[in-house]
Formats: sequence, C-alpha cells, structure tokens
Amino acid sequence: MELYRRRLEKLQQAMLREGVDVYLAATQVNMQYLSGFSEPPLERLMFLLVSQGNDPVWFTPALSAESTATNPAGWQTRYVWHDSDGPSRALEACTRDYDLETATIAVDDEMPAAFLLRLQEALPAALFRAGGELMGSVRAVKDADELRCMREAARLTDDALASGLERCMEGYSEWAVAIAIQRALFDMGSKLAFGIPLVASGAMSAMPHHTTSQRALQKGDIIVIDFGGVYEGYCSDITRVACVGRASDEARAVYEIVYEAHMRARETAKPGVPAREVDRAARAVIEKAGYGDYFVHRTGHGIGLSIHEPPYLAQTYDGVLEVGHCFTIEPGIYLPGKFGVRIENVYTITERGCESLNAEPPMQIREIE
Amino acid sequence: MELYRRRLEKLQQAMLREGVDVYLAATQVNMQYLSGFSEPPLERLMFLLVSQGNDPVWFTPALSAESTATNPAGWQTRYVWHDSDGPSRALEACTRDYDLETATIAVDDEMPAAFLLRLQEALPAALFRAGGELMGSVRAVKDADELRCMREAARLTDDALASGLERCMEGYSEWAVAIAIQRALFDMGSKLAFGIPLVASGAMSAMPHHTTSQRALQKGDIIVIDFGGVYEGYCSDITRVACVGRASDEARAVYEIVYEAHMRARETAKPGVPAREVDRAARAVIEKAGYGDYFVHRTGHGIGLSIHEPPYLAQTYDGVLEVGHCFTIEPGIYLPGKFGVRIENVYTITERGCESLNAEPPMQIREIE
Repeated sequence: MELYRRRLEKLQQAMLREGVDVYLAATQVNMQYLSGFSEPPLERLMFLLVSQGNDPVWFTPALSAESTATNPAGWQTRYVWHDSDGPSRALEACTRDYDLETATIAVDDEMPAAFLLRLQEALPAALFRAGGELMGSVRAVKDADELRCMREAARLTDDALASGLERCMEGYSEWAVAIAIQRALFDMGSKLAFGIPLVASGAMSAMPHHTTSQRALQKGDIIVIDFGGVYEGYCSDITRVACVGRASDEARAVYEIVYEAHMRARETAKPGVPAREVDRAARAVIEKAGYGDYFVHRTGHGIGLSIHEPPYLAQTYDGVLEVGHCFTIEPGIYLPGKFGVRIENVYTITERGCESLNAEPPMQIREIE
Repeated sequence: MELYRRRLEKLQQAMLREGVDVYLAATQVNMQYLSGFSEPPLERLMFLLVSQGNDPVWFTPALSAESTATNPAGWQTRYVWHDSDGPSRALEACTRDYDLETATIAVDDEMPAAFLLRLQEALPAALFRAGGELMGSVRAVKDADELRCMREAARLTDDALASGLERCMEGYSEWAVAIAIQRALFDMGSKLAFGIPLVASGAMSAMPHHTTSQRALQKGDIIVIDFGGVYEGYCSDITRVACVGRASDEARAVYEIVYEAHMRARETAKPGVPAREVDRAARAVIEKAGYGDYFVHRTGHGIGLSIHEPPYLAQTYDGVLEVGHCFTIEPGIYLPGKFGVRIENVYTITERGCESLNAEPPMQIREIE
C-alpha cells in the first residue's frame, strides 16, 4: 500500500541522514506504523527489518507467522523460526542476506534488552544504536491518513466527554463520571488511551495525578476530567473543568488565566517555532498572574500511536515545530487544598499555524446545575 | 525491612550460582519486588543496583529521587543525575564504587534497549546478560508476604465474579457483565489485572481471545468469563462458565471433561514434579475424551506481580514445581461455531501438593435462571 511505502521512504531517508544501515522495529507501535500489523509482541524474538533499497521483511516466531503474513503493508514474512530450533538459524540467514555482520543497526528504544542481547551475541561486530530519536522524528510528522485517525480519535473523545459532563452533579461519584465516559467510548467502538478517566473533584482537583475515587460529588466542587479515546491505534487526550453548580469567583478567575495561557500557547505554535517557546508563552501568562509556582508540569506532549511522544512542549526539549506535528496544549494551575484547573486540547501544526482537533475549549468553567 | 532483605538474599544466591556480579533492575515489577517502590519508569536511565555483600542502591534521575528515597526497603538513593548534566557523571561514580568496568552484569529482560545501549557505551568491557531467567526463578517462589497478597487478590477476584454472574441473564450484554465485575473490583479498592474482563457468549465462547462486545445475552448461551483482580500489585486470574438458563447435554458433557482435566492437573501438581507433567495430565483427559484437537493452548502460567511469569505448565517448559510456586490451571475445549468451556483457578504449591487460592470450581455449569 502507498501509505506504508511513503512511511518507509521517510524512515529510509532519516536512516541515510543518520548513517544507519538497518532499522529493527520490535515494539507494537512501530511495527503498526510501518506495516499496519498491530499485535502485542511475545517474549520470542521478532522484528520488522528495514534496510535501504529493499522492502522491509519480517523476522518472526512460527506462532506469529500467520499474523505477519497478512500485514496490511504486504511486507514479506521471510525469516520464520520454530521453538524446537530457536532463532539462530533464521538469524544467520538474515545476517547473510542483509550484510548485518558489520552493519550499523538502530533498534526501537523500547525493544526488550533480552532481544538486543540475543542480536548482539549473533552479531558481535555490528554497531547497535538506540533508534528512538530517529523514529520519533519520523513519526512526529503525521501523514494524511494519520491525521484522519487523529481527528476521528478527537471527535470520539469530545463525544464521550459529553456523557461524563452530564453526570457532574450531586448524586454521582467521580467513578460514575469516569465509567460513563468509558461506556460511551466503548459504545462507539473506541477505548481508553490510558487508564480509567481521571476525574478529580473538590480539593482533589488540585492533584494533577489524582486517582479517580468513589468520592460523591458535592455542590460547589470543581471537577477536572482528563482522558482520551483511541481510533485505529491513534490516541487523543482532553481535559475539561466543570463545577457542580456555581463556581467561586476565585475559581472563575483562575480558569480565565489558564484559558488565556492556553490561547497564547496555541497562537505561538507555528511551523518553525521551537517547541519550548510554546511552553514559554503559556508559562508567561501564568507567571504574570502570580501563579507561576502552581503550574507544575510542561505545557504539552506530542501524541499519535503513543500517548506521549515527540515533540514535547517543554523547556528541556530542543525540537522545532513542523507541519503535521500533533501535540497537546494543557497548561494548569493547582492550588493545594483548594482546587485545580487544566485545559487541554490536541492540536496539529498546519502551514498557517495550529489547528485544534478537539472542539474549542469553553471560555468559562462549565457550571452544571 | 526483613521482607526485602530475604528477597535480596535469594537473588544474591542465584547471582552467585550463575556467576553474575551485578543485577540491574529497571522494570516496575522487579523494582517493586526488591524494594516495594512501584512507579512506572520514565524514559530516563534508572535502576536498582544489586551486588554481593552490599545493600542495593538506587541510580535515579533527579525527578524520581524523592520517590526512591522513600522506598519501603530503605535502600539508599546513592546516584542522582540531573537533566542538565545527563547520567554520565553518576555512571562514572557508580562504575568506580562497584568495579563495573569488567563485571558480569545481568539486566531485566524487559529493560528498554536504549538503557542497555547507554550502559554498554559507558562500560565497553563489561559482560551484559539477560537476567530474566535468573530473576524469574527467584520471583517464582513466593514468600509468606507474597502469598498473603496472592490470597487476597484471589478473594477479591472471587467476590467480583459474583457480581458478573448475577448479570448472566437475558436483558444484559457481555459488556454489562464485564463492567459489573470492573465496578466490583473498583469498589473493593482493586483493579483489573489485564484489560476489560473477557466475557464471551454463545458461539463467541469458542474463541479463547474474544473481545467483550455489546452482544445481548440470549437464552441457552454458554458464557465464558475470564478476568483477574489485583492486590498490592499481585495479580489473580479466574475463568468460569455460566449458561443463560439450561445448558445443552453436549455443553454439560464437555464441561465435565474440562472439570476432570482440571482436577487431574491439580492432583498431579506437587513439589518436584516437572511442570510439563501437569500439562500432560490435563491434556490426557481431554485427548482420551476425543477433544484433543480442541484444547488449543497450554494448561497454565505462573502468576504474581506479572500476570504471566514462570513456571509455565506447557510441554515447552523445562522447570520443576517447587513449594511457593503460584500458577493457573486452565484447561479448555473450544468447539468452533458452537461453544467453549474453560475452568481456571490459581494454585500454589505446598509441601503436600497444591492448594487453590480461589474458591473451588463448580462441578457443573452454573445455570442462571
């Protein structure tokens, strides 16, 4: 399929630039990205081998050979090994065919160490390198098909959010809100991108990593809801703030600051802009309002097949934004013992700036009576 | 704490036997096992270093130093590195203190390849080995504290099952059964050990890896329910079979065969018995009844901090059962297009044989009217 061939070419170009002869993809997301095949890997040695001038080929245990044989990209299942033999013979054939003996070989950062040690034993003179940055830069720029999936994931997420917001009332618990969201995603054929939806109410909303509890919602509670849906493997991520009844003046004022920080960040995000400048833009608004000490995390993270991937909107990240990048913008203010506010959408960089994949964040706290 | 010191000694003895100087634990489960510290690792280089004759020490990014400092075992947070410097200087100090330069170093099988490559770069003359088998053999034998957790996880799982079984009636869907189980676990402060509960009804019950759907339960449906709860990180796993109304004679007969296979397997499981003989015992019953071709998986897997770990009750596994081993017994028969039956409990090996951690499996299909 053209789709996978274009991704292959992007990766091959990046390999050429970096002096990498062969890339071995062994994690579920990278195998899916390059081939459409998406199954959790077994403990048995398996990878998709990418080289210059050839189509990728599968190296796979017999147990998975039927599955890889039907990979949507059509890459050939060329090296199959059986439990009775172990992978040695297949590795020898692969080494011969691809001159692996003295090759520079990049592997997924998250490939299990046991796989890498097995490969190093078979190829003592090869040079192995961590391929995470290389693959990260390739995957960060989404193609049209990926953007279609990212948009759909965002739409499903927005729809599921509505089911959660309906329950931000007395008589429901944090858990009830979370389960309504999970159910809505499930009913649409989607699922959660990460854990149970975070639903943090009252003083708990000031904890960015609260665990959703059975706490009953009470009049006046600020509620932070954070979750994501998935479409064809692509993740989304959203955070919204609701209040059971009327919000306090302080909560409204803090929400306005976070909203302003969110908007300044997204105005800053354009092709060619360093990612850290977007973080700076959000942080400047919050610092100026006197809440700098209460914005305790980075402004956002890239998103795609993984919930966290490059680019990162953080002072410690060096990259520059490019057309096709997808990431969250999610500034927050957390006042311990009182409440917290975070507003998060997923954006993609276009020629003209940055476009939201989620519905616009509301200008005020959503008060639910 | 004594608990962690005893685990440390078990690991140190195994290292001595295998000629390993240093073990580096970098995965959440192994760090928890050795120290009680349980947080998902970051992308930053971090490990717990175990050597002979010393207490383990933490090598950690500054971001995690506060968390490791409070690890229940009390192991010292000795090497801390900051994003501004990178890990090189801390690695040099650690290399000096522990003579790592020419050491034989075992690492977690699932340590990210990027970590291992970073370590190899710093220690070109050290010998790195996959530590999975070594650590697997240590963790397979549960201590008293672990058995307490395994029992509690099984009890929570049994209790949550009851909430699912109640809904195996017309008017509910597979999803409703699954969500009732999830809810029950949550209400008890537990969570799911793996994915959404598998609830497979009607002809779908013949698919061992069915995905729980919105299918409405119908009169006469066989329903296979498979899930596990978690207690303090320790997993449980259970499978039960129900029927909406009266089961057919064929389903009852197949259930009896699987029940018999389950019972023969557990009678076979004793200290000193090769794990594969337990598989053989279950398989013999099913083969003799003429259903050998329809028992398409191994008889069981070890379980603990991981849902799948040694020992494996399979023809391809070489180990021998020891006191303290915990594993599932879960034979099944799957008749495509008709129905499937699987009966699963978690067991632990005692001096006298094998003891169920779950309630006894019922002798007949649970018919729910």
